[in-house]
Amino acid sequence: MEMLDLIRKKRDGGEHTPGELAWLVQGITSGRIPDYQAAAWCMAVYFQGMSPREVKSFTLEMAASGIQLDLSALPQPVIDKHSSGGVGDKTTLVLAPLIAAAGVPVCKMSGRGLGHTGGTIDKLESIPGFQVELSWEEFIRQAQAIGVALTAQSEELCPADKILYALRDVTGTVESIPLIAASIMSKKLAGGAGGFVLDIKVGNGAFMKDLEEAKTLAQLMVAIGKGAGKQTVAVLTNMDQPLGRAAGNALEVREAIAFLRGEAAPDLLEVTLALGAQMLKLAGAVAGLEEGREKLRRLLYSGRGLEVFAKWVAAQGGEPRVVEKPEMIPGAPVVRPVFSPGRGFVSGMATDLLGQVVADLGAGRKRKKDIIDPVVGLVFHKKPGDPVEPGEPLVEIHARTEEQALTAGQVVLQAIKVTEEPPSPKPLIYGYIV
Amino acid sequence: MEMLDLIRKKRDGGEHTPGELAWLVQGITSGRIPDYQAAAWCMAVYFQGMSPREVKSFTLEMAASGIQLDLSALPQPVIDKHSSGGVGDKTTLVLAPLIAAAGVPVCKMSGRGLGHTGGTIDKLESIPGFQVELSWEEFIRQAQAIGVALTAQSEELCPADKILYALRDVTGTVESIPLIAASIMSKKLAGGAGGFVLDIKVGNGAFMKDLEEAKTLAQLMVAIGKGAGKQTVAVLTNMDQPLGRAAGNALEVREAIAFLRGEAAPDLLEVTLALGAQMLKLAGAVAGLEEGREKLRRLLYSGRGLEVFAKWVAAQGGEPRVVEKPEMIPGAPVVRPVFSPGRGFVSGMATDLLGQVVADLGAGRKRKKDIIDPVVGLVFHKKPGDPVEPGEPLVEIHARTEEQALTAGQVVLQAIKVTEEPPSPKPLIYGYIV
Repeated sequence: MEMLDLIRKKRDGGEHTPGELAWLVQGITSGRIPDYQAAAWCMAVYFQGMSPREVKSFTLEMAASGIQLDLSALPQPVIDKHSSGGVGDKTTLVLAPLIAAAGVPVCKMSGRGLGHTGGTIDKLESIPGFQVELSWEEFIRQAQAIGVALTAQSEELCPADKILYALRDVTGTVESIPLIAASIMSKKLAGGAGGFVLDIKVGNGAFMKDLEEAKTLAQLMVAIGKGAGKQTVAVLTNMDQPLGRAAGNALEVREAIAFLRGEAAPDLLEVTLALGAQMLKLAGAVAGLEEGREKLRRLLYSGRGLEVFAKWVAAQGGEPRVVEKPEMIPGAPVVRPVFSPGRGFVSGMATDLLGQVVADLGAGRKRKKDIIDPVVGLVFHKKPGDPVEPGEPLVEIHARTEEQALTAGQVVLQAIKVTEEPPSPKPLIYGYIV
Repeated sequence: MEMLDLIRKKRDGGEHTPGELAWLVQGITSGRIPDYQAAAWCMAVYFQGMSPREVKSFTLEMAASGIQLDLSALPQPVIDKHSSGGVGDKTTLVLAPLIAAAGVPVCKMSGRGLGHTGGTIDKLESIPGFQVELSWEEFIRQAQAIGVALTAQSEELCPADKILYALRDVTGTVESIPLIAASIMSKKLAGGAGGFVLDIKVGNGAFMKDLEEAKTLAQLMVAIGKGAGKQTVAVLTNMDQPLGRAAGNALEVREAIAFLRGEAAPDLLEVTLALGAQMLKLAGAVAGLEEGREKLRRLLYSGRGLEVFAKWVAAQGGEPRVVEKPEMIPGAPVVRPVFSPGRGFVSGMATDLLGQVVADLGAGRKRKKDIIDPVVGLVFHKKPGDPVEPGEPLVEIHARTEEQALTAGQVVLQAIKVTEEPPSPKPLIYGYIV
């Protein structure tokens, strides 16, 4: 086989055989295929797409390109949740303890990732003492003991995807639905879970701005999961506003603790219940979604979720008293409000711009080697639909310096629209792909 | 400027500014732009194309990426001819002495190239003693003295094109009309001529199989030439059969000598006159094309062309007596005829397949480092439209070994169609783009 022939085949709209894709993934993993050929192939895929059959083969080969976790020591099936990413998305922080409290084990490998903030492990590291590097034995033992464990993603997981993603990132080929679906699902499959709930975010703060495109991605990912013999459900959720009340690493952990103490932002609660009910249903812990939501509500308001969270923090070396005293989590030296310029209603939030502010404050990574600042970020006092008075705080900026706060405040004002009339409400959950 | 932004712009169908293209070509030449990004950009160009304005800027930047020849010491304007390549194309070998004999200087840099046979310099090297590596001073002095000089293309000519072409060759991005046009025209422009006659070959033995596509390429190349302030004309010529009577390096030189002695194959004569008349007209040596053809015919049949050819060979160290004794040019040890299997007419020739036979006999290069065998090739006794009897020779195979000749013979029989009815004749010249 020659890589040139595969590039030309894809360029001309052909369909790769499973054998070709196996050869290609092995060649990328071993370095036998040079990056310029892989880059040209990715661009050809960008234009010509991939058939569902191709995506499935490609994903399975990528999942098999490195280690594949064996979670068989845990009660089955383990259900994994994945989010396509959005501003203020801390659902993993609250779902993990709630699902574990429901008796369904949660054991998750999580990447550090690039974005407005760090990934879940970066957020958890803002808790004093929290360790995110567990050995394989520690990871399984902890999940068996307290029902929840989280560790940094092994470098040996999906090396083909790692190589390809780094290349796509610098060659303008990230934005390809089949390549996105294969990249995500290969890591999920290698993670060893028996079922997946996919949170596909749609809106001005999400990678997918368009509902139809998001549906296409969700359908493809669900088909890949099912094709690999795993129960898979996708939930399409609204990302036209930040999720919950905070964006930033430590700020999101604080919000997660407040949530588990019963002070849940309504949008975060609704999304959490929607995703969690699907997870419990896939795990066979409940018969239906309504029963799942009810169970999660009980675990939340009884404080069981908070208890598990504290145990989880303690198990990974963190300070469990943060659940009583969230102020033990370090805060930003400069906290400044941004006031509403007028009277009316918050009618829209340029969520991607707000995400950019959070990133510029230092909460995220642009490159893998960047160091994130855990304390910075934004707290949202008003969300779309909320009435505001002139001079009322819209947002609280948590910054390292006054100068940063000032710059951030100017952008925040551009990002939040205040109008006389309230906006027409949008659904938080657009639908399910099963 | 970031290469990633340029890739995305092209991927999304945008038009590059001249500044962007200058930056891109400089980055490719200096190695600042990594090959994986250049490869992704080429594939994006494959799908999205380039505007005429983009192609012009891109070509001029590539031409300026290395040395640019100064031919001002010669009578102006110097007219260069370029062929898009085909099987048996030895027009440069016969046109160079004829045009020089008409008083218009011919000084040409020629690449070794990949293909069925070597390039013009490889062919000339089959003449005992012929030197193709002239210094810049020798080159100009010879052109001044005898009106014709040819040298191997400098490695310093169009380095950006060299890098990009090597990359396109292994990334499935050769087949892009704007990239092809820019690649050819950048080398032509750097070669310093004041006008260009482009022989764009169309048919089953040419890179362009389709007349419309060839027209598009020709129009684009003419526009680039004119945009650079050079007189430029394209001639669309038929390549549904090998040109002339031989394909192979030494065999083509022998045919060129026979041609200049007045034994011209009719198709080679017609194409030579068509191209040559355009060259003379662009040079201002004749008023019209018919006058140009007439002048060339006189120079041919008076033996003036042959005289100049002999002087040319002698000037570059070769054995000038080859024009009297073509058998001084080495021949193949094994010469075997392929006989017609039946009675009728040659109705078609799979020219690309015949070219492949010539290459497989050892006449061409697949990779730059390959060594070509000057003596091997094919001599065509019959051409489309010719009547044949059973057992009459169709082709003569010139091979290194009996085994090679046997294999070649089997393929040749597949490549030449003999039918009861004669084929409807096709024009040799499809038209001109001026």
